[in-house]
Amino acid sequence: MKILFIGDIVGEPGMEMVRRTLPGLRRKYAPDVVIANGENAASGKGLRRQDYDDLIFGGVDVITMGNHTWDKKEIFDFIDGADGLIRPANFSPEAPGRGMTTISKEAGLLTVINLHGRAFMPPHDDPFEAADRLIAQAREESPLVFVDFHAEATSEKIAMGWHLDGRVSAVVGTHTHVQTADERILPGGTAYLTDAGMTGPYDGILGMKKEEVLYRFRTNLPARFEVPKKGRTQLGGFFVEADAGSGKAIRCERILINDDHPLKY
Amino acid sequence: MKILFIGDIVGEPGMEMVRRTLPGLRRKYAPDVVIANGENAASGKGLRRQDYDDLIFGGVDVITMGNHTWDKKEIFDFIDGADGLIRPANFSPEAPGRGMTTISKEAGLLTVINLHGRAFMPPHDDPFEAADRLIAQAREESPLVFVDFHAEATSEKIAMGWHLDGRVSAVVGTHTHVQTADERILPGGTAYLTDAGMTGPYDGILGMKKEEVLYRFRTNLPARFEVPKKGRTQLGGFFVEADAGSGKAIRCERILINDDHPLKY
Amino acid sequence: MKILFIGDIVGEPGMEMVRRTLPGLRRKYAPDVVIANGENAASGKGLRRQDYDDLIFGGVDVITMGNHTWDKKEIFDFIDGADGLIRPANFSPEAPGRGMTTISKEAGLLTVINLHGRAFMPPHDDPFEAADRLIAQAREESPLVFVDFHAEATSEKIAMGWHLDGRVSAVVGTHTHVQTADERILPGGTAYLTDAGMTGPYDGILGMKKEEVLYRFRTNLPARFEVPKKGRTQLGGFFVEADAGSGKAIRCERILINDDHPLKY
Amino acid sequence: MKILFIGDIVGEPGMEMVRRTLPGLRRKYAPDVVIANGENAASGKGLRRQDYDDLIFGGVDVITMGNHTWDKKEIFDFIDGADGLIRPANFSPEAPGRGMTTISKEAGLLTVINLHGRAFMPPHDDPFEAADRLIAQAREESPLVFVDFHAEATSEKIAMGWHLDGRVSAVVGTHTHVQTADERILPGGTAYLTDAGMTGPYDGILGMKKEEVLYRFRTNLPARFEVPKKGRTQLGGFFVEADAGSGKAIRCERILINDDHPLKY
Ligand SMILES: [Fe+2]
Ligand SMILES: [Fe+2]
Ligand SMILES: [Fe+2]
Ligand SMILES: [Fe+2]
Ligand SMILES: [Fe+2]
Ligand SMILES: [Fe+2]
Ligand SMILES: [Fe+2]
Ligand SMILES: [Fe+2]
Repeated sequence: MKILFIGDIVGEPGMEMVRRTLPGLRRKYAPDVVIANGENAASGKGLRRQDYDDLIFGGVDVITMGNHTWDKKEIFDFIDGADGLIRPANFSPEAPGRGMTTISKEAGLLTVINLHGRAFMPPHDDPFEAADRLIAQAREESPLVFVDFHAEATSEKIAMGWHLDGRVSAVVGTHTHVQTADERILPGGTAYLTDAGMTGPYDGILGMKKEEVLYRFRTNLPARFEVPKKGRTQLGGFFVEADAGSGKAIRCERILINDDHPLKY
Repeated sequence: MKILFIGDIVGEPGMEMVRRTLPGLRRKYAPDVVIANGENAASGKGLRRQDYDDLIFGGVDVITMGNHTWDKKEIFDFIDGADGLIRPANFSPEAPGRGMTTISKEAGLLTVINLHGRAFMPPHDDPFEAADRLIAQAREESPLVFVDFHAEATSEKIAMGWHLDGRVSAVVGTHTHVQTADERILPGGTAYLTDAGMTGPYDGILGMKKEEVLYRFRTNLPARFEVPKKGRTQLGGFFVEADAGSGKAIRCERILINDDHPLKY
Repeated sequence: MKILFIGDIVGEPGMEMVRRTLPGLRRKYAPDVVIANGENAASGKGLRRQDYDDLIFGGVDVITMGNHTWDKKEIFDFIDGADGLIRPANFSPEAPGRGMTTISKEAGLLTVINLHGRAFMPPHDDPFEAADRLIAQAREESPLVFVDFHAEATSEKIAMGWHLDGRVSAVVGTHTHVQTADERILPGGTAYLTDAGMTGPYDGILGMKKEEVLYRFRTNLPARFEVPKKGRTQLGGFFVEADAGSGKAIRCERILINDDHPLKY
Repeated sequence: MKILFIGDIVGEPGMEMVRRTLPGLRRKYAPDVVIANGENAASGKGLRRQDYDDLIFGGVDVITMGNHTWDKKEIFDFIDGADGLIRPANFSPEAPGRGMTTISKEAGLLTVINLHGRAFMPPHDDPFEAADRLIAQAREESPLVFVDFHAEATSEKIAMGWHLDGRVSAVVGTHTHVQTADERILPGGTAYLTDAGMTGPYDGILGMKKEEVLYRFRTNLPARFEVPKKGRTQLGGFFVEADAGSGKAIRCERILINDDHPLKY
C-alpha cells in the first residue's frame, strides 16, 4: 500500500499549494491513500467545515489534527459526523471526535492514528499508553497502521518511533512546521520521520508573516500573527510504501516542494 | 571562504565519528575553517579539557557550546584561556568565557558567534539584541560572520534567520539533535539551516541509549541517560561558502552521514 | 510614611470591593499613599481608560500591572499620558509606558517600581538587574521605595526579597492571586510578602468562575473564563509603614477581607 | 477526628524543628493523626530509610511525598514495605509504592491520599480522575479522607479544592514551600489551604541557602543548592477537625511557627 502524507496545511496558501501540487504528487507516487494534517487550515488556526469539505473533495482520505483542533468553534458541530477526520487519540475521554479511523482501499485496510505529545505541551493523556492500546486494536483488522504524532520535542517523537517500531507501518511527526532530514526505516520495519514540515507560505515563520513573529520575539509585546495572503509557498510531506501482508514499510521518501526544490518526476 | 560546521558532538561515538569522517569531508569540501558544537562531547554533557584538546588538535578551529556548557565543572578552569572555544554570547555578563571570536585564515577574517535561545529554555539575555550588538562590532573587521544559534523552538530559530538575513554569512541552529531539511540561502544572502543535527550514535534518542529515554517518557520515573559505548554513528553538519568581499553566502549544503547515507565524493 | 497596597483587582467585583472597602481601610490604616495592582481590572484581563479613571478618582495613587498589561488594546492610547500608571520596568525598551514613578506626599517622596518575573513566564529582561539600576536611581531622591514584583514562582519572589533587603522599604508579590502568610520585615529593614492575593470574587478560581476553569483542568478542552457577575468578594492587600528618614520598614501587616475575615478596626 | 498536617520537611533543620515542636503541637491540638510531607527530608531532596524511621518513631502516622520522591535511590528498596509512606497516586502504574493508605485510630478510619499537579510540572496521570476513583474507593470504608495535593500552580490547587468539596475532609497543598493565608472550610464541608508552607530554615529560599539560589537567578550559572546547617527554623502546618460520621470539616487552622510567630497555647 502506498501512502502519501501532507504536513500541517497552513491557511489559504497551504490549501492552494495542495490543490496545485496534488495532481503531480499523484502522478509521481500513485498513492492508494492520502492523509493530511489540517490543524492550521483555517487561516492558521483550526479547521472549518468548508476546509474539511475542500480537502475531502480534493482527494484527501483522512485529515489529522493537533493542538489547534478546537481553535475554530464550528468543529464541535461537525467533527462527530466527519468520517475523514480524526483528532489526537489521547485527548480527554470527554472530547468529541475520534482519534483513530480505518479506511478500506483496494490495496487493503489502513488504520490512521493521531497522537499528541506532552513535552513543552499541555498534559494530555499518555500517548505511549494510548498508542499501545489502539494499535493492538487496529492490528486485529490489518497490520497497516499509520501514526501522525503531533509533538514539539525531538526526543519524544524519536522515542515514539522506537516504541512503535515493528508494530506500525509509519510514524510521522507534525507540529514544528519544519521538515527534518532523518527519514529512515527503523530496524523493525517502521518508516519514521521526526517532522514532515508544513504546507503553506515559504517566506514567513511557520507559515505566519515574519514581521509580527519577529517583533514578538524581540519585544514580548502583543502581535497579531497572520498568514500572508500572497507570496511563495511550499509543501512538506512524506511518502511511505508498506507491504499489505506484513504491514512493514518497504520504502519511504521525504517530500519537500518549493521554489528551491521543484517537484520532479 | 569555505566553512564546515559540525553539529552537537555526542560523547566518544561522536568524537570517533569526527576523527573518522573529517579527512573525507576535507577532501570533499576543502574548508578554510572548521567549526563544531562541543556541548555534548564529554559523555553527552559538557566539555572537558581533553575533549577540547582532541578537537582542536584534530583540526577544529572553533568550538561552540549551548545549555550543557557548564556540565563538566573543569571548564571553569580552562575556558578563559581557550582561544578556540566560545559559549553563548547572551549568557550572563558574570559568566566566564566569551561568546564571539574572530579567526584569521588566508581566505579572510571570520567571526563566529554563539547564541542561546529562550523559548522552552532558561531566561538568558535577549539573543536578538546580543546579535545586533556583536554583529555590528564584527562587521567593522570583516563581513564574514557565522552564527550558531543553540535553541529549541523552530519559530525562534527561523526568526533569528530572518533577523540576521543580509548581515551575516550563515545562521545554523543546534540543540534539537535532529537535522532539518530546510537549508537555503535567504534573499539577503544568509545561508540558513534550522538545525544541523547531532554527531554521535545513530540508533539511540538524541545520542543517548533509547531504552532509558523511552522508560522515562513512559513512566516519569528516574532513568540514567547514557551514551552507548558501541553501535552505528552519524554526523550532522552544514557547509557554507561565502564571498569574502561581501560576506554573502554563495552556496550551502546539508551534510548527513550515516549507514543509510554514506559520504560521497 | 504609611503605604497601603491592594492586590490584583479582578473585574467589576474587584472594583466594587475596592470602592466599598477603601473608606474603612483609610480609617484603620491612615495611608499616605495607596497603590493597587490593576492588571485584571477590565473583566479579568487588562485595564481600560475607564478602569484607570475609576481607580485614580477613587483614591488610588499608583496602579501597577503585570502579564495582562496589554490585554486591552486601548491601553496603548493612554499609558504614556497616565501619570499614576506603571507597568513592569523590565519589559522591552520598545514597550510604551514606564516602570517606575515617584510621588510626592506630605510624608515624603515615594518611588514605586513594578517588576516582572521570569520563572514559568516569558523571557523578559532581567528583573534583578533592572531592580539594581532603578533603585540606585530612586534612592538619589528618597530612600522610600516600594516594589511590586509580579511573578509566579515562590523561589524567584523570595530571592528578590533578599536581593533588595535593606535597599527598599517593601517588596510585595502579585500574580498568583492567593495571599501568602509569610509577611515579615527582613533583617535589613525591608517589609516582604510573597503575594498579596487578589481582590475580587471569593468563590471562584483566581477570580474566575470555577466551573470553566475546572472543566479545562479536567479535559484540556477550550473553556471561556469569565469573572462572575455576582457573588461574594474578597480583598487582598498589604500595609507597610516605613521610616521616611531611612526608608526602612517599621511595621507591616497582611490585609485579607472576606466573609470569613471581615474588616476590623 | 483531629488531624495535624506538617508541610514539606526540609533537611536536618526541618527534622529538628519537628522534634522540637511536635510535643507542643500535640498539647495544643491533641491530634488523633499526624501526617507530614517528607519529600525534602534528606538534605532537601528525597527520603532515606533513616528519615522515614525518624519520622515514624517520632510520632508521624503517614508521610506523603511529591516531585522529589525518587531523589534518594534507596527509597526504591523500602517504599513497598513502608506502611506509613505514600507517594502521589497519579504516578505511573509502574511506579513502586502506593498513593493511598487507610489508618485506623480510636477516632475512626482515615484515608490519606497524595496527588501530584501537572501545571508547570511533568505530565503525570490526571490527578482529578485519580482523585475521583480513589475517593470513591476510600469512602466505602469511611467518609474521613485527607488529600495532600503536591502542586505548583494556585489555579490547579484551588480547582482541586472545589472539585473535591463535599467528598473529602480536607485538601491541603504542598510544594511551593510558602504558606498561603487562604484557609477556609468550603461550602460542601471540605477544609482547604492552597499551601501549608515548609518546615525548615527560616532565613533561606524555600529551605535552601539564599546566596546560591540568588546567584542562579541573577546569572543562570550553575549553583550548588544546600540546606544551611544552622540558623533559625520554621514550621508550616494545617490543623483540621472533621466529624467522624459525615467526614465534614468542623474546624481548620493554619499553623505557622517561627521566631516572629512563636507557638502559643
Ligand atoms: Fe501544532
Ligand atoms: Fe501546525
Ligand atoms: Fe543543547
Ligand atoms: Fe546538544
Ligand atoms: Fe498576572
Ligand atoms: Fe493578576
Ligand atoms: Fe515539591
Ligand atoms: Fe517540597
